[in-house]
Amino acid sequence: MTPARNDEIWMRRALALARRGEGLTRPNPPVGAVIAKAGRLLASGFHERAGGPHAEALALRAAGRSAKGATLYVSLEPCSTHGRTPPCTEAILRAGIRRVVVAAADRNPKHAGRGLVFLRRHGIQVATGVCEAGALELLRPFFTWILTGRPLVTLKLGITLDGRISDASGHSRWITSPAALRCVQSLRRRADAVLVGVGTAVADDPSLMPRPALGRSPFRVVVDSKGRLPARAKVLTDGFQDRTIVATTRQCPASIMARWAKAGARVWILPAARQKVSLAALVKRLGGEGLLHVLCEGGGELAAGLVQAGLVDDFLFFLAPKLLGAKAVPAIGGAGWTLAGAPALSFKSVRKIGPDLLVHAIRQV
Amino acid sequence: MTPARNDEIWMRRALALARRGEGLTRPNPPVGAVIAKAGRLLASGFHERAGGPHAEALALRAAGRSAKGATLYVSLEPCSTHGRTPPCTEAILRAGIRRVVVAAADRNPKHAGRGLVFLRRHGIQVATGVCEAGALELLRPFFTWILTGRPLVTLKLGITLDGRISDASGHSRWITSPAALRCVQSLRRRADAVLVGVGTAVADDPSLMPRPALGRSPFRVVVDSKGRLPARAKVLTDGFQDRTIVATTRQCPASIMARWAKAGARVWILPAARQKVSLAALVKRLGGEGLLHVLCEGGGELAAGLVQAGLVDDFLFFLAPKLLGAKAVPAIGGAGWTLAGAPALSFKSVRKIGPDLLVHAIRQV
Repeated sequence: MTPARNDEIWMRRALALARRGEGLTRPNPPVGAVIAKAGRLLASGFHERAGGPHAEALALRAAGRSAKGATLYVSLEPCSTHGRTPPCTEAILRAGIRRVVVAAADRNPKHAGRGLVFLRRHGIQVATGVCEAGALELLRPFFTWILTGRPLVTLKLGITLDGRISDASGHSRWITSPAALRCVQSLRRRADAVLVGVGTAVADDPSLMPRPALGRSPFRVVVDSKGRLPARAKVLTDGFQDRTIVATTRQCPASIMARWAKAGARVWILPAARQKVSLAALVKRLGGEGLLHVLCEGGGELAAGLVQAGLVDDFLFFLAPKLLGAKAVPAIGGAGWTLAGAPALSFKSVRKIGPDLLVHAIRQV
Repeated sequence: MTPARNDEIWMRRALALARRGEGLTRPNPPVGAVIAKAGRLLASGFHERAGGPHAEALALRAAGRSAKGATLYVSLEPCSTHGRTPPCTEAILRAGIRRVVVAAADRNPKHAGRGLVFLRRHGIQVATGVCEAGALELLRPFFTWILTGRPLVTLKLGITLDGRISDASGHSRWITSPAALRCVQSLRRRADAVLVGVGTAVADDPSLMPRPALGRSPFRVVVDSKGRLPARAKVLTDGFQDRTIVATTRQCPASIMARWAKAGARVWILPAARQKVSLAALVKRLGGEGLLHVLCEGGGELAAGLVQAGLVDDFLFFLAPKLLGAKAVPAIGGAGWTLAGAPALSFKSVRKIGPDLLVHAIRQV
């Protein structure tokens, strides 16, 4: 086995660990670390929550004195600054690590490359870019947030092959297969907030919580410009109201807002744009709360509004092999676009999920 | 190389030859044949038109005396009956072929297996099922026609990710990429007729001819229940009017039918169902004319009608990475279905075609 191949194997392990922190670490990124020496695993760790120890610190602590002369694999460039925890670069130095392998350099302008320079200056071998694509994928929400102040927004819709999210009578359970629904649960676990329009909240009365939660508790955000969300809605009665945010405007009667607040939800009064909640303001506010990744689950009007405002980064469409026809509810509502002015995406991947297809597209840049 | 592997290589060659006849042989199937001996190609042939020699006959003629002791690879079981040409099984026997390898047995109840029995009885080694899947794919239109009397119907639509075939002002050129459009030309070359609704014929005024034609001249069929197709339409003026069929009902004024006929088109007056051309009657009539494969290119109303009538066998949707919103023209029109009653398809494959996806689904059986 070549050394490069060995590096990849250990780094994949570090990435798998990092993924265990997805949806837990906000506003920090999920990071995993592995310490190996002479082809043997010494210790590993992943960042579990903001304020808690970094992945490298956990692994170094677990390795103890054996870390001397070992190689550290870490999915993100180690921090070199004092934050809530001391800089990892110094801990690496103190532990006597001989070589550091990094998947992705930090993109935070305050940190970028500084940790690597520090390590090299102190005689530690540094290799970068190992499994970089996988790491960047995992770090996209964090990098989006750190560079723009807003979360990565993923629009997830379960649609028919002819682009419908429910039939003419509003039935949408279930357009997609159980396999696709399980996949959605995993998306919810990786998100910091799950966002729906009030139409969907009223029609489907979803809890929006991931099941099983596996320790995650994303916020449920309902966009309700005029105050249609009833007090009996699941998101206001299921015991997790501290995870519920209702985003509204001044058009909503104060009595309704008071009822939401009394139920335990947070009520955000946001600026209006064309008499609806300004989605740019909402997304900015979610970023301000330290949320890295927002998963929008529809409906068609909210989806159209987000696309119109240029706020959707990722599109995850579960395509069911069904047709519903022209009278069914469209996946993307709103006034729409001319062909010449249509939002242009680009397809990244397609996977078969049970009988359905999962199409991943991104906004064309 | 194992003998089985050799068989596959020669059979793939026979199948590639067979494909050269697609769209030319109606009402016969496209068939290819290769004769090889001691690992060397002796001769080959493919069926080029009904009434012309069969693939085996062409290959045997080209091989001459050298065919003695050789192996014949043929994509469809050789015929054993006198049709417009003498039975191939006797020619094979006379030529001294030692072994016959067949991809797919005939499904024509009149022929099925008879050729193979004849060959075996006369001491010729027979192997079947080599590259069978590829052969069956190629023979699906013929087998559909021979077993049911109607052509295989493929519904091809170029749609946005949200299921739209044109924007609200009717612009559909071009939703899909040049690569997808080239792929459509190849589909037209493989079809015996290209079918559109009058709405599409009026809005886009397409010629529906494959470009380049490569010797193909599929019929252009316009479904126009009430007589909206103008005399200046390309399909009535482009010099190929003998390839144009207008399918209409008694609701269409006789003067308009007369104008179509004068332009050189065939006019089919078909039974009406709900004041529209009965699509079942149309498809049956197309089968009656010996057409094996009909490619429907929309629009949304005709597509919905065909789906509603259970007449679509294959769905080929070119998905463009674009969104058009709720006011754009839906891929599948009509009254639609409830979720519980929605037509169920099953995905067969997805391919990237330039920036687009080509999704192939079949009717769930």
